[in-house]
Amino acid sequence: MTETDRIVLGHNQYGKAEVRVVKVTRDSERHEIEDLNVTSQLRGDFQAAHLAGDNAHVVATDTQKNTIFAFARDGIGSPEKFLLRLSDHFTGEFAWVDGGRWLAESYTWDRIQVDGAGHDHSFVRNGQVTRTAVVVAEGQRRHIIAGLKGLTVLKTTQSGFVGYPKDRYTSLQETTDRILATDVTARWRYAEGEGARDLDFTAIYDDVKRLLLEEFTRRYSAALQTTLFDMGRLVLEAHPEIAEIRLSMPNKHHFVVDLSPFGLDNPNEVFFASDRSYGLIEATVTREGQAEVPQAWEAATSFC
Amino acid sequence: MTETDRIVLGHNQYGKAEVRVVKVTRDSERHEIEDLNVTSQLRGDFQAAHLAGDNAHVVATDTQKNTIFAFARDGIGSPEKFLLRLSDHFTGEFAWVDGGRWLAESYTWDRIQVDGAGHDHSFVRNGQVTRTAVVVAEGQRRHIIAGLKGLTVLKTTQSGFVGYPKDRYTSLQETTDRILATDVTARWRYAEGEGARDLDFTAIYDDVKRLLLEEFTRRYSAALQTTLFDMGRLVLEAHPEIAEIRLSMPNKHHFVVDLSPFGLDNPNEVFFASDRSYGLIEATVTREGQAEVPQAWEAATSFC
Amino acid sequence: MTETDRIVLGHNQYGKAEVRVVKVTRDSERHEIEDLNVTSQLRGDFQAAHLAGDNAHVVATDTQKNTIFAFARDGIGSPEKFLLRLSDHFTGEFAWVDGGRWLAESYTWDRIQVDGAGHDHSFVRNGQVTRTAVVVAEGQRRHIIAGLKGLTVLKTTQSGFVGYPKDRYTSLQETTDRILATDVTARWRYAEGEGARDLDFTAIYDDVKRLLLEEFTRRYSAALQTTLFDMGRLVLEAHPEIAEIRLSMPNKHHFVVDLSPFGLDNPNEVFFASDRSYGLIEATVTREGQAEVPQAWEAATSFC
Amino acid sequence: MTETDRIVLGHNQYGKAEVRVVKVTRDSERHEIEDLNVTSQLRGDFQAAHLAGDNAHVVATDTQKNTIFAFARDGIGSPEKFLLRLSDHFTGEFAWVDGGRWLAESYTWDRIQVDGAGHDHSFVRNGQVTRTAVVVAEGQRRHIIAGLKGLTVLKTTQSGFVGYPKDRYTSLQETTDRILATDVTARWRYAEGEGARDLDFTAIYDDVKRLLLEEFTRRYSAALQTTLFDMGRLVLEAHPEIAEIRLSMPNKHHFVVDLSPFGLDNPNEVFFASDRSYGLIEATVTREGQAEVPQAWEAATSFC
Repeated sequence: MTETDRIVLGHNQYGKAEVRVVKVTRDSERHEIEDLNVTSQLRGDFQAAHLAGDNAHVVATDTQKNTIFAFARDGIGSPEKFLLRLSDHFTGEFAWVDGGRWLAESYTWDRIQVDGAGHDHSFVRNGQVTRTAVVVAEGQRRHIIAGLKGLTVLKTTQSGFVGYPKDRYTSLQETTDRILATDVTARWRYAEGEGARDLDFTAIYDDVKRLLLEEFTRRYSAALQTTLFDMGRLVLEAHPEIAEIRLSMPNKHHFVVDLSPFGLDNPNEVFFASDRSYGLIEATVTREGQAEVPQAWEAATSFC
Repeated sequence: MTETDRIVLGHNQYGKAEVRVVKVTRDSERHEIEDLNVTSQLRGDFQAAHLAGDNAHVVATDTQKNTIFAFARDGIGSPEKFLLRLSDHFTGEFAWVDGGRWLAESYTWDRIQVDGAGHDHSFVRNGQVTRTAVVVAEGQRRHIIAGLKGLTVLKTTQSGFVGYPKDRYTSLQETTDRILATDVTARWRYAEGEGARDLDFTAIYDDVKRLLLEEFTRRYSAALQTTLFDMGRLVLEAHPEIAEIRLSMPNKHHFVVDLSPFGLDNPNEVFFASDRSYGLIEATVTREGQAEVPQAWEAATSFC
Repeated sequence: MTETDRIVLGHNQYGKAEVRVVKVTRDSERHEIEDLNVTSQLRGDFQAAHLAGDNAHVVATDTQKNTIFAFARDGIGSPEKFLLRLSDHFTGEFAWVDGGRWLAESYTWDRIQVDGAGHDHSFVRNGQVTRTAVVVAEGQRRHIIAGLKGLTVLKTTQSGFVGYPKDRYTSLQETTDRILATDVTARWRYAEGEGARDLDFTAIYDDVKRLLLEEFTRRYSAALQTTLFDMGRLVLEAHPEIAEIRLSMPNKHHFVVDLSPFGLDNPNEVFFASDRSYGLIEATVTREGQAEVPQAWEAATSFC
Repeated sequence: MTETDRIVLGHNQYGKAEVRVVKVTRDSERHEIEDLNVTSQLRGDFQAAHLAGDNAHVVATDTQKNTIFAFARDGIGSPEKFLLRLSDHFTGEFAWVDGGRWLAESYTWDRIQVDGAGHDHSFVRNGQVTRTAVVVAEGQRRHIIAGLKGLTVLKTTQSGFVGYPKDRYTSLQETTDRILATDVTARWRYAEGEGARDLDFTAIYDDVKRLLLEEFTRRYSAALQTTLFDMGRLVLEAHPEIAEIRLSMPNKHHFVVDLSPFGLDNPNEVFFASDRSYGLIEATVTREGQAEVPQAWEAATSFC
């Protein structure tokens, strides 16, 4: 550091994280339930707070939490629409707030089956997967990134791994029949432009999930990389409103146990499911020539 | 401590915990998958190991692990049957092993739906609930305790809490309409006796789960205690092969958010889902006059 | 089930779990902090609540929570003394409450070092270990069980495992030099009788922790069983006020990595730290001829 | 999507995550221990693998794991130096690998005190904080980002929050005396240039941690924002070799419990420690005019 170095504030954001809001709609005897975990963080001119302890611009994180609950009074609709409403409110209400990020996880509840029919007001949590949503505001721009995480899938065959380079540290044996298992984390960014805010986000979410599951099963997997790319491609082909999709997929190793010391064969029937280490395969599937928006992705992931 | 105090070994057990075994059955193109987390702990004469460092009786925990994998070669069948086989093996093979405890968690995989049908060899993890099983050996006796955990249920109405005692520290308001939510943990002990080992444990498990869900919905809940008892009673009435059932159910509080400072009403529509603290309601539902077997329950829970 | 079967309520307990109370003592500029996670569960006559939805005996779990906060106003002192006060209050205040269990975890905060001295009011959480306490009331009797959990220790040598029985499923190789690593969970029960409530529980806790650590290091470990027993014995020898101690210690395997395929030796220098499976060694160390109190231990562990 | 849309591979990386390597140095009777969790992911030309199932470029993740263990044979040194060695190896060995990211968490072990001295080969895990390191390779460039996470600190006074804007949704009361508590996550990026690879990373880490702790205590906190900025500024002032620092700090709320319904006062002595929601304050502290390197930060955080 030379004497001329001045230490300054760089990127910053602040707000309230993990507001656990449950909205029950009771218009009729058949109740509906929406269950979300919402985070709100504002961006804008917060210099004075950081440098001088002046809070005149600091919309309290408690106020952000209250706003989330108050807005839920009118219903959630979809996580994406709820976050868009929040983003419009905060950037519209406070002159010095010119952006922010709003995140939601949402949890699915199924109706409990009684006498063959879904009950009116009793639910069981589904647990298969968590739906995610992010809205990023940059002035008037809105980036909308939907996603899912924790979708654990496994195929017992039609997967292999051969033809990789061998060096001094290579000991892995080639195989054309192994278990392939992963926890799918996916995030897809909607194309900006007219109509982007009015999409049926829930219908698209359901279809993307269906496509990811189907493509995982469909063909022989030469490596998790090809399976990942095919899953992303199928989504983009079916959904022109989606600009790009990112996938992060661990290779959750299932090792064939060597039973020969015990006088037994093991034709790919008994496996040890390992915790760590695991492979980690990550890629963006996108459209040729499309502009990148790194600031949207940076907001969707952790700050540090 | 007086001079005459001699320090001695009390209750003890040892073994291998959390063996993650996945069994694929590939008899036909339609594969089956069984996914378990198995623990094996032996009891018997292990004095010399503790007091003198003499391991002549210590069946290595690694050997116990190997045995689990080797036995899986012949199939799992049901968690209970698999644990019974293990218990017979270890108590039969080693003269000084006169008991033990074997535990399993098992995870459900659904077939991925492709073109409207479940796929032959591709699966998605269900995530709704974890099935549990415990077998305790005391010499020739076998205690079999089945269960489930993590079954999260919620009803949006038909629950209240009134008529409780008020003292200096009481501030809770009575209500006749609240959300009731809990994570059901249940364990049921099968009656000992002829035929106990040959039950269709999986069919009973499915039916107990169904009954627990149905009874949770069925009537107005005057307190979680009554709902818990009714759930247990229904199971015992339907299943004479079950001697008793234990239930542990947190009261996962969903607080109505006061929106009046923001000029809004809130007729039980917007809730804050709280993490901690929570109520914790636990009870055994049993049959009159039946002998207790505390040693079975002690083995089903944590050692310390 | 025959017609004569009557379904009845068995063991039961209920209350408020995980009340996160932080007490700051500000008598002087040098503040003190106590940080606890407290659970209160009552036992007694709660038949009507379970069978008839009559809550006249149900001291609200919310009231139990309020009582914990109110009692903290006078200070915590030690987890054991705080739980004893709660047990006396609830069994004394409500005629139908004749017992219960009160649990606490407590977390240690160190003073932040500034200019070589501990700061008056700034703290950093220690994180080495969690202290635990349980008080069980049975009418006038009080069982006091102190403990710790999550004390992770490792020795890089002076540990081996030889002389164990070999059978068809044994593949483990003998070794006289391995890493021994474990997470110590310990619970010790104080002897009942005069003066038991007036012990200096914190001083004893500190000394027991010191003894457990020292004995872990002291001598060659022929198996985790001998090390466990020696650790318990040392505690009982030094502390006549302790009736018995239970230890649960996983054998956290560190496997020597075979580097020979890469042209390297590995004289016990590079290890893979495995997550699962792990050994699990558990035992009670006690005094000869002493009466057992299984109901105290049952209350210290999970209900189901 | 128009017909001209071509779906292509975007950013991608793959490798082995969470390799748990423990290195013991046994040069003398006084052993040393290094305990790391290492992740290696490669970037470069992996088109054929994703698009055509051709693995000729796919250095197996298993090979990456083996390399980590083999390199540990020569010692770790510091997490940063170890990751630099790995980055040089992979980019040097395989022509098509032109970058990557390598991450490490490391865990501190203290020597167990016996008779007032640290033992030669017995250790207890510290648990106060986790050290982190990231090395990002872009061709010949190396970005080095060190950090820590999970450093939980609390001050019982000298913190307040006043002067913030009030709107319709504001209900928070101003205060000039509250508990301030947070879990510090920090990452600092070292300036590029000559000598950057030869820094004493461990000494700097220790000093940064000390500075963060000291500054947290030092002055009245007008908001967590000012405290965060001051903490970062102090680090940059003391360490010219650090280009910038990012801090993510939750505001872990400790609410004063209202004891007045129970006839008690509460002069900031009894608090409820809340889990969720929590504030989340995040900022970069940097030097004026310095070029940004978003690609380094993007690699330090999660992919999606």
